[in-house]
Amino acid sequence: MNVSAVRVCQLPVVKDSRGSLSYAQYGELLPFIPKRYFIVFDVPEGQTRGGHAHKEVEQFLVCVKGRVSVAVDDGRNRDEILLDSPLVGIYIPPRVWAVQRDHSSDAVLLVLSSDVYDPDEYIRDYDEFLKVAGQR
Amino acid sequence: MNVSAVRVCQLPVVKDSRGSLSYAQYGELLPFIPKRYFIVFDVPEGQTRGGHAHKEVEQFLVCVKGRVSVAVDDGRNRDEILLDSPLVGIYIPPRVWAVQRDHSSDAVLLVLSSDVYDPDEYIRDYDEFLKVAGQR
Repeated sequence: MNVSAVRVCQLPVVKDSRGSLSYAQYGELLPFIPKRYFIVFDVPEGQTRGGHAHKEVEQFLVCVKGRVSVAVDDGRNRDEILLDSPLVGIYIPPRVWAVQRDHSSDAVLLVLSSDVYDPDEYIRDYDEFLKVAGQR
Repeated sequence: MNVSAVRVCQLPVVKDSRGSLSYAQYGELLPFIPKRYFIVFDVPEGQTRGGHAHKEVEQFLVCVKGRVSVAVDDGRNRDEILLDSPLVGIYIPPRVWAVQRDHSSDAVLLVLSSDVYDPDEYIRDYDEFLKVAGQR
């Protein structure tokens, strides 16, 4: 991973005759306590989502069904991560530009967020993002 | 809902040309800050999951793909809730016996939990549960 502080992790799974359970929890793979979750689904073919950074909010992404590609950019380096398993999580720290694309028709992306929704907390302009990212 | 303190809620959804997003957050529909999440998937036909209560842990369940039926029981009353939409959440307080069954083959159940995993926190014996439930 070239993009500073973004972490991709393999999530634990408990698998038996009754099915599979994967998880993450605070103090282990989840580096914050989430106050909000959201799920993104029914994304039409060819659409992109995201296209912003957060000022302070941390996020943890898991594609719990299907697959989606997540591009991350810290203003200096870029990476693209294919999420195609409920056993892979990505931690995205604040001040990282992220875009999701190439959703499969059945894709369900779970996002845990370190704070509740605040529209003022988003950086939606890439030039503004580069200024903020340069102040690291 | 006959079972005390179990709440079924309709989750907000933001739907546009880029797809759908549903969410819950602390202070609104989510009555606790989750320290752990888990997802249950690939449950074979005819299997049941759950079959326990928690001493103190609160949970919030959303079937983010497919469908599953959740039976809840507070020791006096029982109910069964069909989860077949990512826009429906169930809050399950402590000391409620819960069983999940009739999973569709594509079902993915998201569970947010108010605390990290602790095996001593489970009540796995129904008679013990009835004793605890009677002490409400």
